Amino acid sequence: MKMTIAEIALFLGGTVNGADDTIISGVRSIEEAHEGDITFIANKKYLKKLKSAKASAVLVSPETAAEGEGRSLIIVPDPYAALGKLLALFYPLEHGRSGVSPEACIEDGAIVSPEATIFPRAFIGQGAKIGKGTVIYPGVFIGRNSSVGENSILYANVTVYHSCLIGNRVILHSGVVIGGDGFGFASPGRNNTKVPQVGFVQIDDDVEIGANTTVDRAALGRTWIQRNVKIDNLVQIAHNVVIGENSAIAAQVGISGSTKLGRGVMVGGQTGMVGHINIGDHVMIAAGSKIHKDIPAGEMVGGAPQMPLKKALQVEACRSKLPEMRATLNQLVRKMDELQKK
Amino acid sequence: MKMTIAEIALFLGGTVNGADDTIISGVRSIEEAHEGDITFIANKKYLKKLKSAKASAVLVSPETAAEGEGRSLIIVPDPYAALGKLLALFYPLEHGRSGVSPEACIEDGAIVSPEATIFPRAFIGQGAKIGKGTVIYPGVFIGRNSSVGENSILYANVTVYHSCLIGNRVILHSGVVIGGDGFGFASPGRNNTKVPQVGFVQIDDDVEIGANTTVDRAALGRTWIQRNVKIDNLVQIAHNVVIGENSAIAAQVGISGSTKLGRGVMVGGQTGMVGHINIGDHVMIAAGSKIHKDIPAGEMVGGAPQMPLKKALQVEACRSKLPEMRATLNQLVRKMDELQKK
Amino acid sequence: MKMTIAEIALFLGGTVNGADDTIISGVRSIEEAHEGDITFIANKKYLKKLKSAKASAVLVSPETAAEGEGRSLIIVPDPYAALGKLLALFYPLEHGRSGVSPEACIEDGAIVSPEATIFPRAFIGQGAKIGKGTVIYPGVFIGRNSSVGENSILYANVTVYHSCLIGNRVILHSGVVIGGDGFGFASPGRNNTKVPQVGFVQIDDDVEIGANTTVDRAALGRTWIQRNVKIDNLVQIAHNVVIGENSAIAAQVGISGSTKLGRGVMVGGQTGMVGHINIGDHVMIAAGSKIHKDIPAGEMVGGAPQMPLKKALQVEACRSKLPEMRATLNQLVRKMDELQKK
Repeated sequence: MKMTIAEIALFLGGTVNGADDTIISGVRSIEEAHEGDITFIANKKYLKKLKSAKASAVLVSPETAAEGEGRSLIIVPDPYAALGKLLALFYPLEHGRSGVSPEACIEDGAIVSPEATIFPRAFIGQGAKIGKGTVIYPGVFIGRNSSVGENSILYANVTVYHSCLIGNRVILHSGVVIGGDGFGFASPGRNNTKVPQVGFVQIDDDVEIGANTTVDRAALGRTWIQRNVKIDNLVQIAHNVVIGENSAIAAQVGISGSTKLGRGVMVGGQTGMVGHINIGDHVMIAAGSKIHKDIPAGEMVGGAPQMPLKKALQVEACRSKLPEMRATLNQLVRKMDELQKK
Repeated sequence: MKMTIAEIALFLGGTVNGADDTIISGVRSIEEAHEGDITFIANKKYLKKLKSAKASAVLVSPETAAEGEGRSLIIVPDPYAALGKLLALFYPLEHGRSGVSPEACIEDGAIVSPEATIFPRAFIGQGAKIGKGTVIYPGVFIGRNSSVGENSILYANVTVYHSCLIGNRVILHSGVVIGGDGFGFASPGRNNTKVPQVGFVQIDDDVEIGANTTVDRAALGRTWIQRNVKIDNLVQIAHNVVIGENSAIAAQVGISGSTKLGRGVMVGGQTGMVGHINIGDHVMIAAGSKIHKDIPAGEMVGGAPQMPLKKALQVEACRSKLPEMRATLNQLVRKMDELQKK
Repeated sequence: MKMTIAEIALFLGGTVNGADDTIISGVRSIEEAHEGDITFIANKKYLKKLKSAKASAVLVSPETAAEGEGRSLIIVPDPYAALGKLLALFYPLEHGRSGVSPEACIEDGAIVSPEATIFPRAFIGQGAKIGKGTVIYPGVFIGRNSSVGENSILYANVTVYHSCLIGNRVILHSGVVIGGDGFGFASPGRNNTKVPQVGFVQIDDDVEIGANTTVDRAALGRTWIQRNVKIDNLVQIAHNVVIGENSAIAAQVGISGSTKLGRGVMVGGQTGMVGHINIGDHVMIAAGSKIHKDIPAGEMVGGAPQMPLKKALQVEACRSKLPEMRATLNQLVRKMDELQKK
């Protein structure tokens, strides 16, 4: 792919500052870009590297444009979003195959679109449906009566248990497990009597789920990942959880059974949530938090256990002063004793 | 499946309160149940939904029976356990296949019961044994000389390394890895010299292990998951760990090498334990705890690092007061200074 | 394998204390060793078991040799490292196969050494390269244009996405995912616009990665695991992370995007790190830490959020005294009030 700076600006809806006729043939990070490359500044931490950067053009926001004087800049409202569009143009996704491989194992009664791509060694169970444009990599298992919509991608070694629903343009990364049994045992620690998990998992359109994340099937009813939710790697989603649309869940988060997240919730990495609570729309949860009760819409929380984020930061600031506080307290006790003796 | 309320009560050993001749044809959650369904109350949080519930019958405990007056109730000592039995009756588990698929890869010298179910694309190594009634899904790998007992289920893409022992009625969910090398390196951070892991993993009868959980083989001897232990998803069990029978381990817990848990231990999600410690029988550990030393039998602990649970809750209550405590302390210091000047 | 104590000492470069002509035929832990076995003491916790041990020989360090008087000892500087060498000798690793299985799925244009071992059901994509002596187990997926060097082992159900580089003598345990997309979305929580991840993963020689660990491909450029790094199970390595040579990362650690670790860094289990920070050479991080800013070379840190380890331990010691501190503080306030009233 080769485009001039002017053409790229037109494609992105941005404004050029500086020369606009240089030909760009690659997109690289600020450290690695050289002549003929375009790069970007999305995080102010990297502004100091701008001076020595060898890139021929830089995507910047209106706020950082001044720092790039003397260079060819493309000014866009959100350089990171613009980078995304540009990468999709310069480096289109390829799967290297098309069509349904005769070496895939497709059980009788499965309905696979002839316009789907099924790699060798995939397994599609009875009654399962695979829509057109969907790509199923080797080692993927689709259980009986599960369905995958159109233009989705299931990378190698994904497992989808029976009777689950997966929408359109969904991306499941390798090792993802959809629809394993929820952790339901009566008299735990004594009999551990299994409660069969007879529900299912529903994953709506445009969801992306990271490698080795697990989404358990519901005990009854459904575990539900709504439209355009993005989940990172190694996340645990328990039975009957609901995650509202546009939410983003970072790596290694754990969400216990029947907890419900609203829309646009953002959860930092390694956070844990107990079961049966409600997290309101657009809540933001700091990384490493332990959430044990409901959070109203729009709040920012952090800490273990949870507090409003401001409070959590104040508490943390005090925590590091604890040894000094204790020493001061002991001193005061002595002084008080002396005063009282007088 | 269709049964009257009276028949269900007989099956569960419960007592009916109200009409007992209605025919029940489904089991659903309290929000989703409609006429002809039975539902249940196992968590008091859901009692408030009882009034508007459309279910034709409700499983309740003696304590909550009064709240359901005017409805058809089946009173049982443990509604959640009763639900489990009922679900197993109404929705029996099916695998959609039986017999040993000719498309499975079974090496010479493996002994597979003709009464086992082996899906296409499973791999059974030399000297491995698979008992009758066991179901092996696609993508499962059973290493050389490992054995799986009777009536066990290994879901898609489970890996069992060589020389491991898996009992009867064991359930391993997708992505589980049994018998990978323990993390043993001499002079870590410098040479990282690998210490070969030449032991094995033993998993006793009636164990269930959740999706993408890892159980490492012992350095020497065995890593041992005893009878009826239940482990949730994404748990890490290191080399030479022993987990006593009936213990229940929630998601994302990590247990370091050679730590030993007694019987009936319950561990909350995301807890971490150091290596080489002993956790007594029936210990309960709160979610998110960091355990760094032995715990005597029967104790309840929590916190990071661990404390007795009561103490941990007191400490947490104070922690949120830290900014106020610090302000008060500073005020006292000033007052004391003034007093001393006088 | 049978060797005399004298022969073993010679092999290990150790000194014998006591009889040296006994024949040794096995290596076992101190609890399980019996006559004819050699055992070891690497952790002082196990010294008390030495008296009743039935082993015919014991590997000890110069510091613990005195405790073993009257026994046959082999004194070595590092008994754990010596154990590693001995296990490799007594129990050589076997894979039970050699050669390229005709049941493997190797796409046209892949270059597989005839001296590699490829199991049935492995998938090697177009343009991929597999070096001699490398072992590829069933269910492994190697994407287009990825390469694996010589004498590496990829256990069952490992996934390597396209265009990744894996060195020599690398060990990837089952369920490892190399090269899945990094978690990159513009306007997260609102549009969640995907930023294509067009970089790759480079894994240098002698790296070992534990079961179900995930290493994401770079957004641009590379995610880089340098020589001789050892990573435990269920670890998350985000896009563009760099881990310096000889570092050791324990289980369930999460490292966010673009963070860089120096050489010989040791990270305790369940630690989390934010993105875009630098961790200096030979830093040691205690288990369960939350790291949110740079750490200079050679420091020991711990806590959540991080502090120098000594400080963190002091703070923790105070934390458990919080209820008493609060009571004392309240008492002082009352006394002060009384004094001021006088």
